[in-house]
Amino acid sequence: MIANRRFTLVRRPHGLPQPADFALDEVAAPSLAEGEILVGNVYASLDPAIRGWLDDLPSYLPPVALGSPVHATTVGRVAATRNAAFAEGDWVVGLNAIEDFSVARPGGFLMKIDTDTVASPTHYLSVLGAVGLTAYFGLIEIGRPQPGATVLVSGAAGAVGSLVGQIARILGCRTVGIAGGAEKCRRLIEDYGYDAAVDYRGLDTQALASRIAAAAPQGVDVIFENVGGTVLDAGLLCLNEHARVALCGLISEYNSTDGMTGARNLWQLVVKTATISGFLVKEFLPRFAEGAQVMSRWVAEGRLRVDEHIEDGIHQAYPAFMRLFEGTNQGKMILKL
Amino acid sequence: MIANRRFTLVRRPHGLPQPADFALDEVAAPSLAEGEILVGNVYASLDPAIRGWLDDLPSYLPPVALGSPVHATTVGRVAATRNAAFAEGDWVVGLNAIEDFSVARPGGFLMKIDTDTVASPTHYLSVLGAVGLTAYFGLIEIGRPQPGATVLVSGAAGAVGSLVGQIARILGCRTVGIAGGAEKCRRLIEDYGYDAAVDYRGLDTQALASRIAAAAPQGVDVIFENVGGTVLDAGLLCLNEHARVALCGLISEYNSTDGMTGARNLWQLVVKTATISGFLVKEFLPRFAEGAQVMSRWVAEGRLRVDEHIEDGIHQAYPAFMRLFEGTNQGKMILKL
Repeated sequence: MIANRRFTLVRRPHGLPQPADFALDEVAAPSLAEGEILVGNVYASLDPAIRGWLDDLPSYLPPVALGSPVHATTVGRVAATRNAAFAEGDWVVGLNAIEDFSVARPGGFLMKIDTDTVASPTHYLSVLGAVGLTAYFGLIEIGRPQPGATVLVSGAAGAVGSLVGQIARILGCRTVGIAGGAEKCRRLIEDYGYDAAVDYRGLDTQALASRIAAAAPQGVDVIFENVGGTVLDAGLLCLNEHARVALCGLISEYNSTDGMTGARNLWQLVVKTATISGFLVKEFLPRFAEGAQVMSRWVAEGRLRVDEHIEDGIHQAYPAFMRLFEGTNQGKMILKL
Repeated sequence: MIANRRFTLVRRPHGLPQPADFALDEVAAPSLAEGEILVGNVYASLDPAIRGWLDDLPSYLPPVALGSPVHATTVGRVAATRNAAFAEGDWVVGLNAIEDFSVARPGGFLMKIDTDTVASPTHYLSVLGAVGLTAYFGLIEIGRPQPGATVLVSGAAGAVGSLVGQIARILGCRTVGIAGGAEKCRRLIEDYGYDAAVDYRGLDTQALASRIAAAAPQGVDVIFENVGGTVLDAGLLCLNEHARVALCGLISEYNSTDGMTGARNLWQLVVKTATISGFLVKEFLPRFAEGAQVMSRWVAEGRLRVDEHIEDGIHQAYPAFMRLFEGTNQGKMILKL
């Protein structure tokens, strides 16, 4: 018997996930039905969105069932196959789970990847994966910045935000990043080329809005929002007319238990005739190849810096996931299985 | 000397406007410079938006100055003119103030109106004015409902909301209206033809969302939002994919002092790839004639019911204005001067 170690959900988190919400177990690796593929997961992508899948609430994916391994996008190799489109040893990326072996079924998301042309297969979980494509399509198609526009990015040192800032700069925009702490703000300027960095820590909405306004003297044309709460409220106070807010995530709200902070400055949408648009990268599925090709070229040309934070071993799943909410990851959070 | 009675702002309101925030005074009617027009105001439009103009905050109009009459759209007749485009006795509509006589300057908003083709000149403050055009363009251009779509309207018995529901029905949509109290809900069905009415009173977000979901079994494709707070949050929980929220106003938030309620369910915009767009009717200025023509025809055909609530006398300005926040007006609130 081949063992399958799994990181499972055993209790739905109330607020910030606790160690006891999860368990590590070991079961027999599943056998395959006709058409199925057994993926040996090598790397799992840890994303804030996973927090949403742990709740039993209406969302774009069914919630993780209790006792089941936690969903994640993984990169791995085909360990066994009853599907002619995949050969043993093929590198693949897909929506699987945090476990050694996942069964992929026809119709789900599983794609062969070319590991020869990239520096590391992990790039399919960062710059060439959902994170990179979220940054690319969210900024270009939802934010729609013109050259010369001012783009404000929250969670600017995060996996998505750090790419958004760099892409906006490539497009000829002025970029202002918001992050927590002096060290992250240093990285915004030095590593990701932001024109200005704003540290949100210890500031209320008005004070934060003043800092943003100082960093964006022409006003803000596009917000790429990852954080929500006070950070979004402050950004809303700095909008130009007809501004667009590309709403990617609300990480500050995901673990709230006593009610979320909420957005109190929506009236600014009225007076500035501005728009907030939520989006999911899956909307752009038919254009993934196009996005990945452009991002690939920018990486090859040295115009796009890609930081990955890789933790080693399935027993690191919980602490590595929590780093996303503590803000202590430096780059795209990835778990090596 | 001709007397000019004025309803002036003497103190900026903190929260709900108080009687002592305003004063009635009497000054000499102004004299005219070359190009100017003296408008004898007959009717003034009382709108929730006026609340925003009383604050000293960045908005789309300069705030009302202390000691000055409160801005309002008025319908009146030209009392004197030094502008060849206007003759004494002409009926006009324009952005003036709550006073007997206002001076209109070239470049501002003043327009001659045809009172022969309408049942009452007050229609230029309701169905053919900013209120009617806000309903028309906000629904059609921002909400963009398809025939058969479900349109949810908050403040559904109000001046704008009652028109939105009727227009949506003319367009072939299913209409669900939210209002406060059984009597208003009765009017939604009987007077404005809503398919379903939901009374928000006494319900928390989840309970209100359940009622909306029951009234909109196919989900909500378009929200026309006038209220904000809990009402918006409940609506957000009922959205279909790619839904649009046309954000017209947030009347529940305008008088808050201890922080607004805010919108806590913005994450629904992400999972439903939905959009909130703020708008101002002035964006559609070049198309006002088109909108008024269509609305006029619907009124003439008996397809659009227009309710106006007219209070008599400038001394009624304060209580009539407050009715908007108490929700005790039955139709477009208008003050006869």
